[in-house]
Amino acid sequence: MEAIKVSSRSVPKAVAGAIAAAVREEGSAEVQAVGAGAVNQAVKAISITRVFFEEENTEIVCIPSFSELEVNGEAKTGISFIVEKR
Amino acid sequence: MEAIKVSSRSVPKAVAGAIAAAVREEGSAEVQAVGAGAVNQAVKAISITRVFFEEENTEIVCIPSFSELEVNGEAKTGISFIVEKR
Repeated sequence: MEAIKVSSRSVPKAVAGAIAAAVREEGSAEVQAVGAGAVNQAVKAISITRVFFEEENTEIVCIPSFSELEVNGEAKTGISFIVEKR
Repeated sequence: MEAIKVSSRSVPKAVAGAIAAAVREEGSAEVQAVGAGAVNQAVKAISITRVFFEEENTEIVCIPSFSELEVNGEAKTGISFIVEKR
């Protein structure tokens, strides 16, 4: 599973599409974000993903945790969200 | 269940304590945040809550959604997270 990297400039609806595709194909998705702006876009994207799946009567949950992530070759502490069906 | 309101100046560990108490007493907690800084603090707090419960072999998940929230008497769109045991 390749992680979906989100930045503060990511478009939540586009990210939601990528999350939904990964959840459908692989059962879960990993979403990575470093910084408040990126975390906010990631949460918006996950909220939109939930709406996509609600239409199919499927509930989506997310599991956030602190994670060492690489941004432009530099190690930073960010948030990794695992998104999956309940 | 009274919602736990998080701002960009909230201290994640303190918020995590409040979330953990609500999950223990009521089975779930609602965390509200408006704005990127507040959403980021809320996600950090939920990540810390997860660590608290991991020590008890309990997994915590969160369910984010867009929500109309009131900030200083003004209606704003924010994120509401439901936090509960898996």
